[in-house]
Amino acid sequence: MGRTRKPLRAAIIGLGRLGSRHARHLANQVQNVELVAACALDEKQLKWAQDELGVKTTYTNYKDMIDTEDLDVIFIVAPTPFHPEMTIYAINAGLSVFCEKPLGLDLEKVDEMAEVIRSHPDQIFQSGFMRRYDDSYRYAKKIVDDGGIGNIIYMRGYGIDPISGMNSFTKFATEADSGGIFVDMNIHDIDLIRWFTGQEPVQAYGLTSNIAAPQLADIGEFETGVAQLKMDGGVIATLIGGRHAAHGNQVELEIMGSNGWLRVGEHPDLNRVTVFNENGVVRPSLQSFGERFDDAFTDEVQDFVHNVIVGKQPEVTVDDGIKALRIAKACQQSADAGKLVDIRL
Amino acid sequence: MGRTRKPLRAAIIGLGRLGSRHARHLANQVQNVELVAACALDEKQLKWAQDELGVKTTYTNYKDMIDTEDLDVIFIVAPTPFHPEMTIYAINAGLSVFCEKPLGLDLEKVDEMAEVIRSHPDQIFQSGFMRRYDDSYRYAKKIVDDGGIGNIIYMRGYGIDPISGMNSFTKFATEADSGGIFVDMNIHDIDLIRWFTGQEPVQAYGLTSNIAAPQLADIGEFETGVAQLKMDGGVIATLIGGRHAAHGNQVELEIMGSNGWLRVGEHPDLNRVTVFNENGVVRPSLQSFGERFDDAFTDEVQDFVHNVIVGKQPEVTVDDGIKALRIAKACQQSADAGKLVDIRL
Amino acid sequence: MGRTRKPLRAAIIGLGRLGSRHARHLANQVQNVELVAACALDEKQLKWAQDELGVKTTYTNYKDMIDTEDLDVIFIVAPTPFHPEMTIYAINAGLSVFCEKPLGLDLEKVDEMAEVIRSHPDQIFQSGFMRRYDDSYRYAKKIVDDGGIGNIIYMRGYGIDPISGMNSFTKFATEADSGGIFVDMNIHDIDLIRWFTGQEPVQAYGLTSNIAAPQLADIGEFETGVAQLKMDGGVIATLIGGRHAAHGNQVELEIMGSNGWLRVGEHPDLNRVTVFNENGVVRPSLQSFGERFDDAFTDEVQDFVHNVIVGKQPEVTVDDGIKALRIAKACQQSADAGKLVDIRL
Amino acid sequence: MGRTRKPLRAAIIGLGRLGSRHARHLANQVQNVELVAACALDEKQLKWAQDELGVKTTYTNYKDMIDTEDLDVIFIVAPTPFHPEMTIYAINAGLSVFCEKPLGLDLEKVDEMAEVIRSHPDQIFQSGFMRRYDDSYRYAKKIVDDGGIGNIIYMRGYGIDPISGMNSFTKFATEADSGGIFVDMNIHDIDLIRWFTGQEPVQAYGLTSNIAAPQLADIGEFETGVAQLKMDGGVIATLIGGRHAAHGNQVELEIMGSNGWLRVGEHPDLNRVTVFNENGVVRPSLQSFGERFDDAFTDEVQDFVHNVIVGKQPEVTVDDGIKALRIAKACQQSADAGKLVDIRL
Repeated sequence: MGRTRKPLRAAIIGLGRLGSRHARHLANQVQNVELVAACALDEKQLKWAQDELGVKTTYTNYKDMIDTEDLDVIFIVAPTPFHPEMTIYAINAGLSVFCEKPLGLDLEKVDEMAEVIRSHPDQIFQSGFMRRYDDSYRYAKKIVDDGGIGNIIYMRGYGIDPISGMNSFTKFATEADSGGIFVDMNIHDIDLIRWFTGQEPVQAYGLTSNIAAPQLADIGEFETGVAQLKMDGGVIATLIGGRHAAHGNQVELEIMGSNGWLRVGEHPDLNRVTVFNENGVVRPSLQSFGERFDDAFTDEVQDFVHNVIVGKQPEVTVDDGIKALRIAKACQQSADAGKLVDIRL
Repeated sequence: MGRTRKPLRAAIIGLGRLGSRHARHLANQVQNVELVAACALDEKQLKWAQDELGVKTTYTNYKDMIDTEDLDVIFIVAPTPFHPEMTIYAINAGLSVFCEKPLGLDLEKVDEMAEVIRSHPDQIFQSGFMRRYDDSYRYAKKIVDDGGIGNIIYMRGYGIDPISGMNSFTKFATEADSGGIFVDMNIHDIDLIRWFTGQEPVQAYGLTSNIAAPQLADIGEFETGVAQLKMDGGVIATLIGGRHAAHGNQVELEIMGSNGWLRVGEHPDLNRVTVFNENGVVRPSLQSFGERFDDAFTDEVQDFVHNVIVGKQPEVTVDDGIKALRIAKACQQSADAGKLVDIRL
Repeated sequence: MGRTRKPLRAAIIGLGRLGSRHARHLANQVQNVELVAACALDEKQLKWAQDELGVKTTYTNYKDMIDTEDLDVIFIVAPTPFHPEMTIYAINAGLSVFCEKPLGLDLEKVDEMAEVIRSHPDQIFQSGFMRRYDDSYRYAKKIVDDGGIGNIIYMRGYGIDPISGMNSFTKFATEADSGGIFVDMNIHDIDLIRWFTGQEPVQAYGLTSNIAAPQLADIGEFETGVAQLKMDGGVIATLIGGRHAAHGNQVELEIMGSNGWLRVGEHPDLNRVTVFNENGVVRPSLQSFGERFDDAFTDEVQDFVHNVIVGKQPEVTVDDGIKALRIAKACQQSADAGKLVDIRL
Repeated sequence: MGRTRKPLRAAIIGLGRLGSRHARHLANQVQNVELVAACALDEKQLKWAQDELGVKTTYTNYKDMIDTEDLDVIFIVAPTPFHPEMTIYAINAGLSVFCEKPLGLDLEKVDEMAEVIRSHPDQIFQSGFMRRYDDSYRYAKKIVDDGGIGNIIYMRGYGIDPISGMNSFTKFATEADSGGIFVDMNIHDIDLIRWFTGQEPVQAYGLTSNIAAPQLADIGEFETGVAQLKMDGGVIATLIGGRHAAHGNQVELEIMGSNGWLRVGEHPDLNRVTVFNENGVVRPSLQSFGERFDDAFTDEVQDFVHNVIVGKQPEVTVDDGIKALRIAKACQQSADAGKLVDIRL
């Protein structure tokens, strides 16, 4: 793509933890795009976007923004339940859409959203499976694809937040529907397992607990979820979602092959410093997935911009998003019902 | 115990890979015991015991040995199916018995064996859960017992043999009954999970595969087994047994607590050497559990000798052995039947 | 700084390995600056800058560029011997200057350059000690400054290139003067030792060898250099420069304090993937300092731009550059002469 | 060696920290030897040897013990200054001698001792360079000897005690002569450097400091010593001795080769447990060299016993001991005098 083309005109809905990160990347790092408008309910967030990022116009109603601005693309980083309606509105307005994961929480609405997306094949729709853009996962994927570890036998995905995030989660889950532990914490792991194996799960056994955070029961949440998946090609997988790691943000993926294994993120190293002190030999840990995946977030958005410019649908489709959601919900259903659940995608 | 007491007179049945290790420890390292006799079918093994270990008399029939020799204790390291009858014979002959794990493969015979053991409370019976004697597990256990990681939420036990052991396993499993992947590879993990949590599993979901070693199907074996366990106190556990690790012998235990985690044996480091070469930064790996647990094997036998001398039953009982076996079999049963299995201990 | 100010107009001299990195950062990532011109001898490099980075005008003569363009700042990334004359020319033309390290190779010319810089205190001069901008070193520095490891006793700095860079070094050193192993490979370590300790070295014992690359003797270079420094406040330091690491690019700094140690970059991890294969447990290694320090390179240039805009001289001064150069040369002199050298800064 | 031979009759002089370890190994683990007598000044130590180890006779005067007992071998683990006279007395009495390192502190007396040893070539004399028996060093040595890392370029040896040992050192050094930081802490590193390279040092530059423990100045000791050595074959080496590591006992050896590096003991891992807690990811550290080298201590004594039985002088000779001592003293001399010291062995 030439450097002299006019940048895409972009708007963003949502300026929270993740939204502000995307907005900052769009304003400062992503090429060939201009962040011209932002929508949020919080005035302070909108002022930040104007002052710090130079966003010209701000809105508190996303439909007004879409109707008013001359936009090419929109980034939807609002609370998950709103993803379907916002996506549908934006697609119908002719925009290409980048929508954070998960696609939604209500499968019926997500199916409706997918229908609209599919009926506009010239507009690009991309969802936020940013791990596929992370250097370490890509490196691992290449080893696997090159046959470097033989055939995959087993995979294990951990998505476990640090204790330091517990208060903000409790606040969030009190006000909104998190989708449950597997949807909230393992949707990326599910996507990675499908991506690495090319297989689909057919059966799930989920278990949940609140040993570490009994208070979560009051808001209908679980601190820990564990699920074992049987894949249609024989691979076995384990998912663990959690919210109470003392050390930091444990996002770990194990890929056991017939001729070698890989672990991505075995330890969540904060940086390249090793500390030798009275505790022993210590590697300080990352506390936030944002820090961990900052480059991946930038790269996925850059790729989306590129896809829009060249008119190419992304590798990861709306179907991938729907399947990941169905699988996460099946794990939750198994845990809730106390029995094995067959998965039909 | 004083140093001047007469050493216990001991015999051993079985001089294979593990039997020869025990015999060597008895002859050279364990205090207050004398290895006076050995029984094996292989004449070369018997000659080795005489020449290298100074064992005075050898036998090819274990009953002859028990009937002839003036023994205090016997070590049973014969193939697993023979454990019950040998134990029963030795107990009835008035000996204290150290029996390798698992207690047997046929639950009915194991129950019979347990009955005999229980009816001779003055004779010591100890089974080979040697990991309880390993420095690293003991260190971890102490942290857990001292509340160092809060309440246990989740445990994960890997018992995965290296590829380098595949031929010897195939030969072994062709000639004998291994008991299946969970009995053969995870019985220690099961014991550790019960030991660390003080909880019993109530439900198992097992899955097995032969992706890495399709030839094992011919002898009715699986290369990999994965099982998810629900414990009666809310802990969730994952077991993985395998026979095809490219790097070495992966015996790893993870203990996730509400306030910290422990991993024992995260990497099977061969020694304290780090190699920086064209592959990157490399830690060579152990290939054998024998090397890994050599000190634990010595310490458990020393503890058994001590128990016999002071007349104290060991912490780990015949019931522990039976329960571990039932749990492993339930995992296998679940995998074979393709459904959840309720465990009744 | 507001977002609406006019960006600084920048030019760059040199588009080689490091120059092209700076140019790409200036064009794509650094805020408040516009890369309007580039100078290089290689036409292909100039075309790349035009096509890929959108640089409007290119030159093969740096004086023409400075005379012709309306510039605020210039980035000097040409071969080291040219740094002084280019800096002097640019400063005299009224520009602020970012000059890569080392400042030069001839101490007389560097002193002259410093004189010119000092006589233009309103123009910003910053040299490329980018490690001070690296997250890991900053994290370590904060621990030290907060007293987290007590008083510094000893420091060790390794700057060792991978074997994979040997050919390109040989070509470079055949055509140009590298400055010698300590100047070429340890100037950053020297800066870090001065930065962390606040002390100056007073004595050096240098030793060099060509065991790993005897052919370097033909071009007057050494493969390895080791120097021990005595600092005026009692700290002791070791420097190692090398060009023949089999695993990758080893840039390691150890800081031993009276109450704890830090190691930065103990292993040059390529990413977050751990490989378990027939070699053992492996962490693949970085091959290039560019990859290692990409973020630091961006941040130091961003900081320079900020300094120019607000009119603030950087923390690291031309004197820091001169002192680091004198120290590196003293190490070389000791090795060449085979005796202790007293350092007078 | 057959198992039915009569065990060697052994005595030990010294039952302190290291002496009691040797005594316990002799009594319980080493084959073909019987610990029949022990000499110490402390009655409690002697009682311990009688009660716990079953030593029959004890002495407070070593000459009485040698004159009275019918001995084959003697183990000298008394304070270093006594090593020469004790060795001479024992050799003249016809015994084979195992003498702890270093051989002594006064080079004249050590030369005299060597003279006596050499004039009794049929008696075995072995000194305590136990690291040559440690699995990790042997593994590293084999890699080097097999050409696995090419030619050695550089070595680095750390012998740094933990803070937890500071009080006992201060007490020890107040009452006795430690020999200085390099003799006390790096004599093993010196032996390893000579062993790995087959080269001798020709020049030393030593520096010392008391930054971490100023109080040591009062007893004429240094907390830290650093020395750079030039070897006669071109290898360069760094030694660091210290007494104030916050994390534990850092005994680390780096071997840089032209085609790979090795680090032995990069981190002093206490066991195989990794802790994930509020500090990050932590490996607890060893606090004592005794724990670190327990197996090596046993193996070297077993080898000595074997050497005596078969009449073979050990690989490591009295000359090795003398040279290591001379080198350590040269480092100290350089630090004391503030200049380079040429080493003549």
